[in-house]
Amino acid sequence: MTPRKKLEGLVAATVTPMTPDGRINLSVIRQYVDYLTSAAMLCCVETVNGTTGEGLSLSIQERKQLAEEWMCQGKDKLDHVIIHVGALSLLESQELARHAAAIGASGIAVIAPSFFKPTNKDELLGFLQKVASEAPTVPFYYYHIPAMTGVKIRVEELLDGIREQIPTFQGVKFSDTDLLDLAQCINKNEREQFVFLYGVDEQLLSALAIGANGAVGRLQKMYFLFFGSTYNYLGRKTNLMLQAFAKPDLALARKYQFLMGEFLSFVIKLGFGVAQTKAVMTSVSGIPMGPPRLPLVSASEEFIAKAKAKLESIVWPDGD
Amino acid sequence: MTPRKKLEGLVAATVTPMTPDGRINLSVIRQYVDYLTSAAMLCCVETVNGTTGEGLSLSIQERKQLAEEWMCQGKDKLDHVIIHVGALSLLESQELARHAAAIGASGIAVIAPSFFKPTNKDELLGFLQKVASEAPTVPFYYYHIPAMTGVKIRVEELLDGIREQIPTFQGVKFSDTDLLDLAQCINKNEREQFVFLYGVDEQLLSALAIGANGAVGRLQKMYFLFFGSTYNYLGRKTNLMLQAFAKPDLALARKYQFLMGEFLSFVIKLGFGVAQTKAVMTSVSGIPMGPPRLPLVSASEEFIAKAKAKLESIVWPDGD
Amino acid sequence: MTPRKKLEGLVAATVTPMTPDGRINLSVIRQYVDYLTSAAMLCCVETVNGTTGEGLSLSIQERKQLAEEWMCQGKDKLDHVIIHVGALSLLESQELARHAAAIGASGIAVIAPSFFKPTNKDELLGFLQKVASEAPTVPFYYYHIPAMTGVKIRVEELLDGIREQIPTFQGVKFSDTDLLDLAQCINKNEREQFVFLYGVDEQLLSALAIGANGAVGRLQKMYFLFFGSTYNYLGRKTNLMLQAFAKPDLALARKYQFLMGEFLSFVIKLGFGVAQTKAVMTSVSGIPMGPPRLPLVSASEEFIAKAKAKLESIVWPDGD
Amino acid sequence: MTPRKKLEGLVAATVTPMTPDGRINLSVIRQYVDYLTSAAMLCCVETVNGTTGEGLSLSIQERKQLAEEWMCQGKDKLDHVIIHVGALSLLESQELARHAAAIGASGIAVIAPSFFKPTNKDELLGFLQKVASEAPTVPFYYYHIPAMTGVKIRVEELLDGIREQIPTFQGVKFSDTDLLDLAQCINKNEREQFVFLYGVDEQLLSALAIGANGAVGRLQKMYFLFFGSTYNYLGRKTNLMLQAFAKPDLALARKYQFLMGEFLSFVIKLGFGVAQTKAVMTSVSGIPMGPPRLPLVSASEEFIAKAKAKLESIVWPDGD
Repeated sequence: MTPRKKLEGLVAATVTPMTPDGRINLSVIRQYVDYLTSAAMLCCVETVNGTTGEGLSLSIQERKQLAEEWMCQGKDKLDHVIIHVGALSLLESQELARHAAAIGASGIAVIAPSFFKPTNKDELLGFLQKVASEAPTVPFYYYHIPAMTGVKIRVEELLDGIREQIPTFQGVKFSDTDLLDLAQCINKNEREQFVFLYGVDEQLLSALAIGANGAVGRLQKMYFLFFGSTYNYLGRKTNLMLQAFAKPDLALARKYQFLMGEFLSFVIKLGFGVAQTKAVMTSVSGIPMGPPRLPLVSASEEFIAKAKAKLESIVWPDGD
Repeated sequence: MTPRKKLEGLVAATVTPMTPDGRINLSVIRQYVDYLTSAAMLCCVETVNGTTGEGLSLSIQERKQLAEEWMCQGKDKLDHVIIHVGALSLLESQELARHAAAIGASGIAVIAPSFFKPTNKDELLGFLQKVASEAPTVPFYYYHIPAMTGVKIRVEELLDGIREQIPTFQGVKFSDTDLLDLAQCINKNEREQFVFLYGVDEQLLSALAIGANGAVGRLQKMYFLFFGSTYNYLGRKTNLMLQAFAKPDLALARKYQFLMGEFLSFVIKLGFGVAQTKAVMTSVSGIPMGPPRLPLVSASEEFIAKAKAKLESIVWPDGD
Repeated sequence: MTPRKKLEGLVAATVTPMTPDGRINLSVIRQYVDYLTSAAMLCCVETVNGTTGEGLSLSIQERKQLAEEWMCQGKDKLDHVIIHVGALSLLESQELARHAAAIGASGIAVIAPSFFKPTNKDELLGFLQKVASEAPTVPFYYYHIPAMTGVKIRVEELLDGIREQIPTFQGVKFSDTDLLDLAQCINKNEREQFVFLYGVDEQLLSALAIGANGAVGRLQKMYFLFFGSTYNYLGRKTNLMLQAFAKPDLALARKYQFLMGEFLSFVIKLGFGVAQTKAVMTSVSGIPMGPPRLPLVSASEEFIAKAKAKLESIVWPDGD
Repeated sequence: MTPRKKLEGLVAATVTPMTPDGRINLSVIRQYVDYLTSAAMLCCVETVNGTTGEGLSLSIQERKQLAEEWMCQGKDKLDHVIIHVGALSLLESQELARHAAAIGASGIAVIAPSFFKPTNKDELLGFLQKVASEAPTVPFYYYHIPAMTGVKIRVEELLDGIREQIPTFQGVKFSDTDLLDLAQCINKNEREQFVFLYGVDEQLLSALAIGANGAVGRLQKMYFLFFGSTYNYLGRKTNLMLQAFAKPDLALARKYQFLMGEFLSFVIKLGFGVAQTKAVMTSVSGIPMGPPRLPLVSASEEFIAKAKAKLESIVWPDGD
């Protein structure tokens, strides 16, 4: 494995731009990269084809094209591009892993298969191992999101001895509210230098409390990154929260978290999912992300107007 | 649409034979067809690439190859071959639908997408319609299996006016225990001649009670068929139960249902799923169905031995 | 134990009449008894203080008063009065069991405790046994209703050897849609003469198919009764369905089941529970059953009007 | 309402001592009070008859006796005794509320009724209001524990305008992992001075991050307390964690949280609930807490030995 670059800062879970008639729209990826690295102040790490990117709603061919475009456009601008290669079919997941390796991805991530569900650690590990071994030089992430997959195997248990099965194992995209599990993962694997990308944006500060100090102050020993769909449009504010936490100025960090929570709580009541994230992203960035793909349906005009108004009504501590 | 042949009798949800190293094994399909049509006494209707067939664990290429082989081997032996073309990706589902039409499938079936889940009738119907319209001359079945998909939209509601959206709509593979929903489907759609393939084998007699008379006595007005993985190896007994019910000899029919239930209840306690169905099928038919694909893992030797012993210990009313 | 009378026919799960200001209203029990035994054509068996009766929302004192009034008013009119004595607190359940025995109840029923939930057969059986032993001459019923309690221990497993622990064990109020479990209970316990009161009214015909013949034709060997809140107001129609099934005239029985299902399906869409059952009962019988107790709230006027109109719009096969 | 004393520090959810034959054991309450206020270093606040205290498994009479004994023994030693008065029956809950007021309780808490479940804010509030109004001078707490009750109404929504309905409303025992909900509660109700007792011990530090600064530094404006069954035996360590957090020394606080999490994670894998908490409490304090009441069953000897060994193996940062 080539020496990996230092992972630092926010990780954006990208949406997949589509044309009005529902095909993937590669032409705006360049603009998207620029937006994320400048306006949103993200630190050069993106994930592609994940849940927010409707990865499992795309065809294998589309997923390859998207990955290639992100690699191409991000070449000089993004330090890391992590490509999600999970699929219900092991064969297709393996094919995507080989492709990601071939185009030079910084990492691959795999979600648990969710139709036939692994029921214990060994079944899950068996599946993950077969994918990872197809890309033997690419850092591997397990993507834990039980609310979507229904696979609730504790990550702490999964990590126990995982490097023996998957030498490229690098970390976890942890999208769950079980902070006991996360804390045990961090606690027990301090020496391993595993990376934990936390994906529940509205609880980021709470997750920071059990691990982020390491992320900021001891990057050589413990990585802790943040991964979420919100960061597409709230990246700048999240970075300010991280800075406040690092000082430490908990009261200020909390103020940012509360305001983000206020927005998220507001849209959750209206009905909030990937389709709505896509609409908000279009609204905030000005980049036409297009409609989602069925079975998702476009956010209503009413939702978009209300979300926009709410976002604009928030007075942030930095006076913005 | 060409005039469809009369659907009658049991429908087997086929398993997908695999080689010991995990590739699909097309070479035993011919033998499988012969087994189902002779030893198992099934009435010439099979479904391919469904849940029991691990359809969602196969690659698109494999699904096409399998469908072709079943069409080829079943040409003179099977009246109907229904091909499951559901997928998480609408594009791939459409591709499979076009392929099924091209090879002359008697019907296509589509499961609800289960990662992003449709949350109401319109979202589900939107997805199904986009698939059905790619095979505009092939009878279309909705495959309802909420325990696997988590999509619990009532079928009664879905069927209301469905022919206007999907002119090829033909019926439902109903794999759920909600018999109120099933009864309402049958009751409200008597004139439509929809087909209801019931998929919870252990409750077949209870489902018969609310619809099977039509299946047997009034085939021109109401179809009611039976669809299940058990029929792979218990087809002959199930046929005897159907005959008893048609007489009517409820006491005899009940005896068959109780004995099948005794077997299913026994294996359910040991842990029963698609992997175990595959193992039992190998054991009963003598055809090497091979291992399941990850994340499923092979049934244990202990399970196979116990299931075999249980099956052999049952004394059926026909003296077998 | 005194020789028990023959159990036959429908069992009504009674509602608890209340005054407009929310106290129990004993003054209409006499009228209620007359309604059930005449207009509703029920066969003289009632249950008191169950789910439909809001038993767990009443105080211990109220439950005793209600039980006494039913025993008093039903003395010459009802063959059986089964009193539900389940409670979260074992001590209170035992107190109610002693009281039921003292006033001469024909049977006691106990629901699984649902705050702390028994997690296996032994824990559940331990609780039930401690209650049953306080009423050592009164037939004992387990009340299985997992949708309310969350206790999903299979009844088949519970019954295995139960008479050794609970000599008074008599049967099960089975309010669940798992007909495999019910079928196994009936099949395995034929010699024990256990009674199975089926409580999912909309699936009654399906349950009949796996056991009711015994109920009608072999009452000395196998009891099978019907227990449900619907029978409060649809008792006459349900009895006609039972007669049709006994003939056997499945087509006619099915017609009744479909029409009942049509009504239930209609009100379920509007939101249907104990509060609504109470309102429909008031509407149909003319007896003022009063409001439910908090946390339940009264059915809306709109619901009552729609439910009444629907019920009146149904044309039953007997021309009514 | 008499001016309330300042609430500060940890709150212990007490277990209910029982005799070997299963009756409540009032004779050890004095010893228990002394243990909590000295050895465990708790700050003089206890809750009685809650989930940990098996309150819903006790009879009304027992609950009154226990409450009286805690008030009596705690008179000069405990600043606050909060009595849980929730019950499935509104009438019984009201009776307990009047009793708590009569004996001078510092507060009453009410859990959502969990058999018939309130389905929206108004139904829940209706129930709570009817209980609170029976004790019009006693501070009132809503006890939110959706994993036990199944009632998932968001607390943020419940609190909106609650003082108009319940003038005595004081705060929430928040036993849930939804930190977005908790954060919004704290954020939106800062001026109200509501108290939030957090009950998921293994996530305490994460909850602290979004509110505890207020608890420590601005007690007049915002209360934030900690409520949990773990504090019965880990109170001293938790206090050290709180002190570290207040400094702030996040690294040290995290060390304590990790070690507590390590213990909890260990026992959770063995099967951990109220019965096990009781056993650990007996083991750590030396006070004979006795068995739990059915349907709970005593922790196994094996569990007790393993839990004790684990607890003793932990090396705490304070060298203990």
